Amino acid sequence: MAANSKFAVAVHALAVIAHHSDERHTSRAIAGSVATNPVVIRRLLSQLAKAGLVESAHGAKGGFTLAKPAARITLLDVYHAVEDCGGLFAEHAKKNEKCPVACRMSGILKGVFARVQSKIAPELKRTSVADIVSQLG
Amino acid sequence: MAANSKFAVAVHALAVIAHHSDERHTSRAIAGSVATNPVVIRRLLSQLAKAGLVESAHGAKGGFTLAKPAARITLLDVYHAVEDCGGLFAEHAKKNEKCPVACRMSGILKGVFARVQSKIAPELKRTSVADIVSQLG
Repeated sequence: MAANSKFAVAVHALAVIAHHSDERHTSRAIAGSVATNPVVIRRLLSQLAKAGLVESAHGAKGGFTLAKPAARITLLDVYHAVEDCGGLFAEHAKKNEKCPVACRMSGILKGVFARVQSKIAPELKRTSVADIVSQLG
Repeated sequence: MAANSKFAVAVHALAVIAHHSDERHTSRAIAGSVATNPVVIRRLLSQLAKAGLVESAHGAKGGFTLAKPAARITLLDVYHAVEDCGGLFAEHAKKNEKCPVACRMSGILKGVFARVQSKIAPELKRTSVADIVSQLG
């Protein structure tokens, strides 16, 4: 899965779970809708569980449900849950410590990225998983 | 190079070129500052050249220069030049055509992504490569 499609896949997975919120959904069923490998979905759901967005039950009737109402899960929550390693924009992992340009770039880019993220956050916050599900019809 | 650090590396590369705009810069020298492989930088510079942001000259004194003044290259230009395949957020490449949720998700996510991008664009547009270089001191 491409790094920049992780957010889309997470929203899709949550919409599948929320669409029939009275059922438990297996990673295999969710993977079937997303058209990806169940392992990829399990890894993603594990991140969503850590963030308190989904819950899982083991056993024959096991599977995933939302950990709170879909109306209370915003796309910003989803974004924070899955966009690790610097989020949308990340700095390059390494830098040449001897290069004065490289040494200053880190701070400069952090400022740019912070300003961009501050514009994105309110937009993502105003849409919930319930809003997404309501558009599914 | 992680997909989400491509933009950071491109801005870094352009800042290196713009910082000493009277010189030609080899991909090897730029890669030295970024601390990455020259092949990665050449691929990136090729995208920046296609977008009309840098120019290259071959031969012994060959290398890269900016194709226009640094003040006229905005971070939005850089973003458009390098963020292919859907930009910051991308849809998952595949979908299950038989799943009604999957079939609707594509359109719903496109709407969300378009609203997010519309918030990012003005922020990126108001910073130029010259602004970045001025902060290098």
